[in-house]
Amino acid sequence: MDKCSRCKTEEKPLFRLKNLNMLVCSQCFASYYEKKVKNTVLKYGMLNGVRRLALAVSGGKDSMALARALLEVFPSIKFTIIHLNLGIPNYSDECQEIVEKFCKEYSIELLLYDLKKYNGYSIYDFGNIKSKKRVCGVCGTVKRYLMNKIAYENGFDTIATGHNLDDIVEILFNLYINGSIEELVRIKPVSSSTHSKIVRKIKPLIEMTDREDLYYAISRNLNYVSSECPLVKGSRMINRKKLILKIEEEIPNFKYLLLKTHLKRFLPMLEEYVLPPTLRECEDCGMPSINTVCSFCKLSSKILKLVENN
Amino acid sequence: MDKCSRCKTEEKPLFRLKNLNMLVCSQCFASYYEKKVKNTVLKYGMLNGVRRLALAVSGGKDSMALARALLEVFPSIKFTIIHLNLGIPNYSDECQEIVEKFCKEYSIELLLYDLKKYNGYSIYDFGNIKSKKRVCGVCGTVKRYLMNKIAYENGFDTIATGHNLDDIVEILFNLYINGSIEELVRIKPVSSSTHSKIVRKIKPLIEMTDREDLYYAISRNLNYVSSECPLVKGSRMINRKKLILKIEEEIPNFKYLLLKTHLKRFLPMLEEYVLPPTLRECEDCGMPSINTVCSFCKLSSKILKLVENN
Repeated sequence: MDKCSRCKTEEKPLFRLKNLNMLVCSQCFASYYEKKVKNTVLKYGMLNGVRRLALAVSGGKDSMALARALLEVFPSIKFTIIHLNLGIPNYSDECQEIVEKFCKEYSIELLLYDLKKYNGYSIYDFGNIKSKKRVCGVCGTVKRYLMNKIAYENGFDTIATGHNLDDIVEILFNLYINGSIEELVRIKPVSSSTHSKIVRKIKPLIEMTDREDLYYAISRNLNYVSSECPLVKGSRMINRKKLILKIEEEIPNFKYLLLKTHLKRFLPMLEEYVLPPTLRECEDCGMPSINTVCSFCKLSSKILKLVENN
Repeated sequence: MDKCSRCKTEEKPLFRLKNLNMLVCSQCFASYYEKKVKNTVLKYGMLNGVRRLALAVSGGKDSMALARALLEVFPSIKFTIIHLNLGIPNYSDECQEIVEKFCKEYSIELLLYDLKKYNGYSIYDFGNIKSKKRVCGVCGTVKRYLMNKIAYENGFDTIATGHNLDDIVEILFNLYINGSIEELVRIKPVSSSTHSKIVRKIKPLIEMTDREDLYYAISRNLNYVSSECPLVKGSRMINRKKLILKIEEEIPNFKYLLLKTHLKRFLPMLEEYVLPPTLRECEDCGMPSINTVCSFCKLSSKILKLVENN
């Protein structure tokens, strides 16, 4: 009775291909997912000219799915995994362990970075002291800066991240309603390097939904950190993602529509209109910055003061 | 106990000023509303250089509020009311009656236009034959065209419409998610004339919410058509307005934020980037058009064929 709509085997169909409205087995879902990732990578020329590729892997379902899918789809491409231990109790150590196991299993080079050890504070320190509403934003700044710095200092020319459609649409939605055109112009599948110390970034999962990443992780039996980050609960980011799902109930395919509209209709205009910022080197760390001191160094000294005074 | 938070009289406070979170009496609400309309008109220079002003009045709460507020705020300004009878049974005649009474009470010149009589079809003819989903769009095209034509032929240089914040945000939201930049560039409080046969348009209620218009109509004891247009039920427009109210539950002040972002952040870019369309004169009616035949004439002949074949 319950056959996979694709391969017609008797294997229990567990996954719904939403756009095709088909129930498929885990093997067929994995193939569908990998094909879609491959198409995205090729469509945007993500791996064109890449010499040394790094993957930013947190241990969550998205980045684990990214690593696994790339191994499957482009078996000849070598990459290194960079993992940041953010020092969040009952969470970060589990993340690191999962990533370490994966790298061992597939013989992938791993670069580990311990935030508390090298920078003197953890994301938890901030989240615990300041409003939890802002912690995701702070964590984003820290991760973006460190990923780029580590990749740059280790000679990588491209970083792949696991940002998926839900992540990008949550960001786009906020930037559009606030008219943040200087930031909108930077939201794209491939961000070229604009400075010798800024590493090119690619987002191979930009067209995959949260749910598709999850289904893929399950269908490939991946190990990933199953608990949510304990700091994310009640964050604006989570509420916005929920809101976007509500909008999608009313406007089918809203997420993909917003991405497509951004890339095809607004981005060409934004790229013509918004002048690229003049970058200098941060007085503290030497990395590229718009201001005298970069946002990471400003944030770090603020958090360090908070930690000392607490 | 229950005093108006503004004037402190004993009159029962019935209306909440949402942004100030105050309960006020009907007289204070009306003053607040009129002051806000006045500020909007002055801020955008809506009445600057106007010689002959026409008001598009449907008989609904918004346009009745507009007419009443303008009389109160700018008592020295003369205007004519244009009313279209759209031929919707159990609705349009009531609308017309309300507008006629209002004009009589305040000695305002009234221009009446009967769609069925002059064009051979009513909006009901379309809504009754074709999908109700599209009827609001069709009605919008018909009203925009006819209002402009009547105003032009009668020598008016400015038309004021009752579009409020909820109307504009519903339009903006759809245009943004679809990336309709050629239409977005035209959404503004004052649309200058871009052709000798296109009359300048102003939207004095662009910052007023649906609810504020309703409260004003109640507080000034206005007569307005209280039933909803029978064709609007289940339309995409209504569903989108509901969705926007849901978004506002999560993002306070979302509607005003979207308007402000559009006007301040995107419009300057759109005006620079989007080329104004080359206008010719419609082969059928002689009014300005992008194509050989204008959208109104195309639509009219389509509806007339539908009516004949039905």
